[in-house]
Amino acid sequence: MLKTHHCGQINKSQVGETVTLNGWVQVRRDLGGVLFIDLRDRSGIVQLVFNPDFSGEALQLADKARNEFVLAVKGKVVERAQETKNTNLATGDLEIQVTQLEILNAAKNPPFFIEDGIEIDESLRLKYRYLDLRRPEMQKTLVLRAKASKIFRDFLDANEFIEVETPILTKSSPEGARDYLVPSRVHPGEFFALPQSPQIYKQLLMVAGLERYYQIARCFRDEDLRSDRQPEFTQIDIETSFMSEYQLQELMEQLVARLIRDTTGKEISLPIQRLTYADAINKYGSDKPDLRFGLELKDVSDIVAECGVKVFASVVAGGGEVKVLNAKGCASWSRKEIDDLGTFASRYGAKGLAWVQMKDGEMKGPIVKFFSEADIEAIKERVDAVEGDLLLFSADKKKVVTDVLGALRLRIGKELGLIDESQFKFAWVVDFPLLGYDEDAKRYVAEHHPFTRPNEEDVHYFDTDPGKIRALAYDLVLNGYEVGGGSMRIYKREVQEKMFAALGFSPEEANEKFGFLLEAFEYGTPPHGGIAFGFDRLVMLIAGRTNLRETIAFPKTASATDLLMDAPSEVDDSQLEMLSIKLALKPVAPKKEALV
Amino acid sequence: MLKTHHCGQINKSQVGETVTLNGWVQVRRDLGGVLFIDLRDRSGIVQLVFNPDFSGEALQLADKARNEFVLAVKGKVVERAQETKNTNLATGDLEIQVTQLEILNAAKNPPFFIEDGIEIDESLRLKYRYLDLRRPEMQKTLVLRAKASKIFRDFLDANEFIEVETPILTKSSPEGARDYLVPSRVHPGEFFALPQSPQIYKQLLMVAGLERYYQIARCFRDEDLRSDRQPEFTQIDIETSFMSEYQLQELMEQLVARLIRDTTGKEISLPIQRLTYADAINKYGSDKPDLRFGLELKDVSDIVAECGVKVFASVVAGGGEVKVLNAKGCASWSRKEIDDLGTFASRYGAKGLAWVQMKDGEMKGPIVKFFSEADIEAIKERVDAVEGDLLLFSADKKKVVTDVLGALRLRIGKELGLIDESQFKFAWVVDFPLLGYDEDAKRYVAEHHPFTRPNEEDVHYFDTDPGKIRALAYDLVLNGYEVGGGSMRIYKREVQEKMFAALGFSPEEANEKFGFLLEAFEYGTPPHGGIAFGFDRLVMLIAGRTNLRETIAFPKTASATDLLMDAPSEVDDSQLEMLSIKLALKPVAPKKEALV
Repeated sequence: MLKTHHCGQINKSQVGETVTLNGWVQVRRDLGGVLFIDLRDRSGIVQLVFNPDFSGEALQLADKARNEFVLAVKGKVVERAQETKNTNLATGDLEIQVTQLEILNAAKNPPFFIEDGIEIDESLRLKYRYLDLRRPEMQKTLVLRAKASKIFRDFLDANEFIEVETPILTKSSPEGARDYLVPSRVHPGEFFALPQSPQIYKQLLMVAGLERYYQIARCFRDEDLRSDRQPEFTQIDIETSFMSEYQLQELMEQLVARLIRDTTGKEISLPIQRLTYADAINKYGSDKPDLRFGLELKDVSDIVAECGVKVFASVVAGGGEVKVLNAKGCASWSRKEIDDLGTFASRYGAKGLAWVQMKDGEMKGPIVKFFSEADIEAIKERVDAVEGDLLLFSADKKKVVTDVLGALRLRIGKELGLIDESQFKFAWVVDFPLLGYDEDAKRYVAEHHPFTRPNEEDVHYFDTDPGKIRALAYDLVLNGYEVGGGSMRIYKREVQEKMFAALGFSPEEANEKFGFLLEAFEYGTPPHGGIAFGFDRLVMLIAGRTNLRETIAFPKTASATDLLMDAPSEVDDSQLEMLSIKLALKPVAPKKEALV
Repeated sequence: MLKTHHCGQINKSQVGETVTLNGWVQVRRDLGGVLFIDLRDRSGIVQLVFNPDFSGEALQLADKARNEFVLAVKGKVVERAQETKNTNLATGDLEIQVTQLEILNAAKNPPFFIEDGIEIDESLRLKYRYLDLRRPEMQKTLVLRAKASKIFRDFLDANEFIEVETPILTKSSPEGARDYLVPSRVHPGEFFALPQSPQIYKQLLMVAGLERYYQIARCFRDEDLRSDRQPEFTQIDIETSFMSEYQLQELMEQLVARLIRDTTGKEISLPIQRLTYADAINKYGSDKPDLRFGLELKDVSDIVAECGVKVFASVVAGGGEVKVLNAKGCASWSRKEIDDLGTFASRYGAKGLAWVQMKDGEMKGPIVKFFSEADIEAIKERVDAVEGDLLLFSADKKKVVTDVLGALRLRIGKELGLIDESQFKFAWVVDFPLLGYDEDAKRYVAEHHPFTRPNEEDVHYFDTDPGKIRALAYDLVLNGYEVGGGSMRIYKREVQEKMFAALGFSPEEANEKFGFLLEAFEYGTPPHGGIAFGFDRLVMLIAGRTNLRETIAFPKTASATDLLMDAPSEVDDSQLEMLSIKLALKPVAPKKEALV
């Protein structure tokens, strides 16, 4: 009794036909001796009818079936009586008059309902992931993910990219996040590392003359987790030779437009908006701005530099800045609501949050008295303030102002319902700085990585002001998330040497850290560059989810645990011995009291 | 100067056009002030001409170019003079009259030639893999691999399979090969394991109702390596619900036929031949027979059981067997050649290799005198011996006879040139035994794994003779290699219990080893089964290679070392400390002398 049809695909053209279906009992109803079972498979649900008139022994057997039993049935497709049609079901006009039934397997009562929108503890869902994945919304997401992956591949294959698999057992890298390590049995005392990305391999493939490479690659970072991080994640990894950053970006725009169109039916208008890093930070307080709404930040430092608000004046004098977020129409917010914003802002480092209301035709609030008429007019004009607006002031170092107002902008955008959730708003953020100054280490560090190519126009700053060099690095941003990032890479020796010098590496140090890669670069390296997309995150956004775990079949929790398999777990001593390692557990820290 | 065309795709339709090309210097020739450079990119090679008449400064610059320099050139496509056309090159009728040249990068002289068929130490190729991969035959193999992967995906996508990614950081399994372990930082003393296959996850996806799953999955086994093993390898992993083994096999036949056709143009005639495990062993001495040639083994135990050759008689009496491989036409082989076969056979466990020659109209050889006339006639008939044949006898336990004659069959098939290397000869090997008796452990062990479904006809043997139970397990064999293997899985509790009992597990033991999977099976498990293809091996066979390393971009050596990256390697103590482990290196064993 193997299926001839899928439950959810039974349709009018089959009326009168005998079909065999296999699936799970979604629900069973007994209506006075006639049994109805909704049978579910991957495709959907169809109603089975067991009636003494045509079901014979199958009726008695069906009486034993419970939720999630696995059935095989044979029966005739019939149209339902008009009044019993179910418009909520794709197959709701039809039902199957069952003549034969086999119970393929029994089932215990599941710990939660197999249906969409259940509200239960996520850890229960993760422990019983095989049941959670039976729920239609989860299957739909997995199908979407597979489809998205196919769209990427088909596009890249059609554009002469070659998929190459790179190793998972590789070498610990001297920079970057923490590596997952794998002890070697054959080489005692030595370790492999799981790759944080195939970065080095893909650059070597360019040295190897592959010209266009891609891989849907598993990557690993042993970081502390957040809701949008997983210890292992999937990256669409791309590298090209002999292409400019503009050519690459244009191709990638076509790719993401195709992705969105083929998964959601929506059109992305091309070219995708471009935004410099400086503008993104200044206008939106973020290098991954959500552009589905406005609420741009405005710098009022020049206006308030000499006003009576002492903290404003001193911040500006100290090289900081004062910026305003105009919360449109929020002048009527209560004092408590405004205080909540202050508390929220403090989480992002704000020492305080000044505000004024545009109310009753004037500017009101504790700080207004320190403004001159001219200040007020200038501020109103700068931030486009009209009656009913609430102006939020942040005054601090640039980094703090950015973080605080960037976060407030998002919060207020959401609260005011300014965000059209159905929109996919992409932007390129470009002209990232090549180097950032590390105050602790007292030296410059690479913002992207040490092989990122500087903008040719800025190379002269290596000798004068390295912080001013713009990198040929770019992020693709979608609805406030970074969904892709990449750069052109250095391929000329003299530029690489300048870069290392700027990072404070001696030639010997550079060689120690990146020796084999530098050697590879000596054998005819083409101009190259690439990009990587965060696949889990892209799928999350397309599926309209807010948690990466919903897009991954078997995810890990925030403490990097697999609740289903119970991993990680202890292993036998003999396994460790074979690997020439042993445990070095720290004693559990004694409680404070014990120290007394 | 970014490329407008690919070097290898320059053709007559472009004559007269100006093109821009990017690539590497394959070779440079100076013919009396006119320079010729063969420029190579991924697509192939085209000849550049630098001539004072049209090249201007580019000529002087070209003089600096050496092998593997990276160039950008602009020039006109022209037809070569008839006598200078090169029929060995796809673009050999044409050349580019260069008007503009930019040296994009210099190159050191590579340690080996960038061309096909080089014969150098493989470790040098692995160390400079980025140069090795520039060689056309390596790029061709990578392209073939990518294409094969796409053929698999397209077929499976079209047949309603959903690609699902399963975790790499998973749990150490209680059975199977050695695991690679990954210490957890967050959970001191605990370890993840890298998956030997996604077996458990794919079965859980069937419990989850996915019905048809696939994944091109990275798998890991910490085994001692051979030329056809790698510590990490790629598997095309497939699982289905509600399909019989025949339906699955039929679909997979279409898949491999498509694969062979679309990569080689060759047609595989379907259905693929089916062979029972017993027949494969008896006829070919292997469960993965090379069927491109005959040379079937023949059992003569009954004939020689009472002949005068004592070892034959005693082997048969002891439950062993005597089999003959008829090396057709090898009667003329010298004594030394035959002795070599004996030495070869001893590597497979043979204590000796008896032989007779069919020569001068009679049977000759040391053992012939112990045969009666009737014995001789019966043997000749059984093994189809004619003048000129060489009969090789193996007498031992069945396992030894199988190994010895199986290996000899392959060797002689090759030496006699019986193997048509252009042929792709598939076979299904079916009816594998479910259980094998482990003489050491004094118990039955699962030949495939403990979830393999027994043939329903044989279930009654659980109580009487478990060794007789045939499994619903099947291997796909190609030219003497196992390229795929799978089984239907147990999905009924009572069968699973019988299986565990046969393996000698108490319910408690079973629960300890496979608890969470058994629990999953309680919630409505559909009938399911699957298969996995060894992707590296398939690509190797299609590409006509004999070493897996040729099919992998960045492979590891036989001692599981990455010579390019120098992995595995030592790591910082701080990294180990963070992972709560330390090294436990065994002291190097003192030399024997030191013990005196």
